[in-house]
Amino acid sequence: MNELIRNTISSIRKGNDECCAEAKKHLDSLTKPLGSLGRLEEIVAQYVALREEKTPIISGKAVYVFAADHGITDEGISLYPRDVTPQMVYNFLNGGAAINVLSRQAQAKVVVVDVGVDATFDGNPGLVNRKVRRGSRNFAKEAAMTQEEVEAAIQVGIELAAEAKLQGCTLIAVGEMGIGNTTSASAIAAAVTGVPAAQVTGRGTGLDTERRAHKAEVIDKALLMHFPDRKVRPEALEVLRRVGGLEIAAIAGMVLGAAAQRIAVVIDGFISTAGAAVALLMAPQARAAVFAGHLSEEPGHRILLDSMGLKPILQLDMRLGEGTGAVLAFHLIEASVRIYNEMATFESAGVSQADK
Amino acid sequence: MNELIRNTISSIRKGNDECCAEAKKHLDSLTKPLGSLGRLEEIVAQYVALREEKTPIISGKAVYVFAADHGITDEGISLYPRDVTPQMVYNFLNGGAAINVLSRQAQAKVVVVDVGVDATFDGNPGLVNRKVRRGSRNFAKEAAMTQEEVEAAIQVGIELAAEAKLQGCTLIAVGEMGIGNTTSASAIAAAVTGVPAAQVTGRGTGLDTERRAHKAEVIDKALLMHFPDRKVRPEALEVLRRVGGLEIAAIAGMVLGAAAQRIAVVIDGFISTAGAAVALLMAPQARAAVFAGHLSEEPGHRILLDSMGLKPILQLDMRLGEGTGAVLAFHLIEASVRIYNEMATFESAGVSQADK
Repeated sequence: MNELIRNTISSIRKGNDECCAEAKKHLDSLTKPLGSLGRLEEIVAQYVALREEKTPIISGKAVYVFAADHGITDEGISLYPRDVTPQMVYNFLNGGAAINVLSRQAQAKVVVVDVGVDATFDGNPGLVNRKVRRGSRNFAKEAAMTQEEVEAAIQVGIELAAEAKLQGCTLIAVGEMGIGNTTSASAIAAAVTGVPAAQVTGRGTGLDTERRAHKAEVIDKALLMHFPDRKVRPEALEVLRRVGGLEIAAIAGMVLGAAAQRIAVVIDGFISTAGAAVALLMAPQARAAVFAGHLSEEPGHRILLDSMGLKPILQLDMRLGEGTGAVLAFHLIEASVRIYNEMATFESAGVSQADK
Repeated sequence: MNELIRNTISSIRKGNDECCAEAKKHLDSLTKPLGSLGRLEEIVAQYVALREEKTPIISGKAVYVFAADHGITDEGISLYPRDVTPQMVYNFLNGGAAINVLSRQAQAKVVVVDVGVDATFDGNPGLVNRKVRRGSRNFAKEAAMTQEEVEAAIQVGIELAAEAKLQGCTLIAVGEMGIGNTTSASAIAAAVTGVPAAQVTGRGTGLDTERRAHKAEVIDKALLMHFPDRKVRPEALEVLRRVGGLEIAAIAGMVLGAAAQRIAVVIDGFISTAGAAVALLMAPQARAAVFAGHLSEEPGHRILLDSMGLKPILQLDMRLGEGTGAVLAFHLIEASVRIYNEMATFESAGVSQADK
């Protein structure tokens, strides 16, 4: 593992317990029955523990959309042609995709990062060009990435988290675009949780039952090839290298980087969660920075979130990716911070407390 | 039933099927896998069918917080003293309650309506004074309201919906404050669904197991007294009159009025849902206007929503009331409208469609 990744991991601290306890005490003094704001209270307590500020503030907001192609598309696992990856990159740059719409609503900046699209975007000023290679290799036949490539992609995420910090962001989301990437996420989920591929493989962008079964079979065979000894749980970084994708690696890096910078990072659907799962296996204390934006329709998503001890903020039967569920959840995180800062206390409002 | 209520009910039409079909067709042309925005797509399709506009717009937003006291508090069913109802009304007027904070975030107006608080608010300009009486009667001993009173309270809601329309609101929320009102909501839920009181009776603002059992027992006895023949499902308005509350009746009226005015009305937790349940039993076609903001921790809430065929937008383990869950859901409804209006189509963005 290169020095930047090693140093990043070693600089990550867990949430500040003292701040968290203070936050809970403050929440209990506000004019509402104890605990009656449920998840909003948990969210702001985690945010305070991460930020270590008496008055939590959300300043800059951004979503990082990492795009890459996948060699595994050669196996016929997606309904959409591979061209859609660069086409959607242009759609992001033109502001017409769902993530653009929801980010305008959330007043969050959209940063589109080419970490491995199999196309050339000639000097498009809106695009962050951090291409590691033109798509990962077909993991049904060989490892998706070399060690250098996977580390380079992780490094992209770490470096962009540092930039986000310099730009004053305290709340970021990670999203992705990459035809074929639910196959990669399913393979990661199966490998890191030990759950059979069939259980974590979904319809992706809309496969029928037969094609979904084919997709699970491709994953099963690939995992058997890469990790022949089923009794040994493979090492997370090696899972990422062999069956992951470049955008998933960049997301893993961004989660590590955000945690190191004490920036709250909201993960989106199944694919970004697969990246975060690898990050948390590399640095469990990074969990202090991670918020699960929503629960995707992909069956592997809940399994992965459960394994990470994360509860999704939204459950809207979405399965689009791009960071859409994560950016929608910004509103709830901001609501929790406002509640914390703006509500009256029982004392200040002259409201009687519960009869014990 | 008085003429206003009768006329309101007869003027309510269901959602426009043609508009709904057009909306779905438009959603399928946008640059995302079919149906991949899940609940957001359902929400905007319902909104378009209600508003009957080609380009849906959300203009004015407001939350109506109806406050009233409850004679049933004599039975020791709440943890908080009855004084808290007027104290919280002052907190609303001063902008310090959770609903004020979340409404500022949502840019929604807060309208506080005294429909039956057992206190005098001397000419407070921020308060809408529509007091029907100083609290409902103790329904463990007698009917909570007379026929005139329940109709007067319903009328308050209908009239305020008409005012909301005049003020340009297209999206409103209904909330409430009233110590003791989960007991009333539980009684309504048990009576209209036929489910035993114990299953729909929760901890309210925080009762322990023993006091919760006492609360369920109070409800059981009262329902037996008011509706001795268990084989006959009682009429909804009579349920509201006998075991309801003034704020719950006003909410029922506001749901009817909003549906008549084709304004979208977001219901909040267990109590406002009890009001909406009565409204939908009186006018099933009003369902076209109703959105369920969130799922409360109160066990009766899901039972009631299921009986109405409504799916909550948010599930955040909240149990505060005031309209908090409903106003939080405004963001998701607005997101769905933005998606509808702002996303690029496959054609306009030059993105390839799925391979069928």
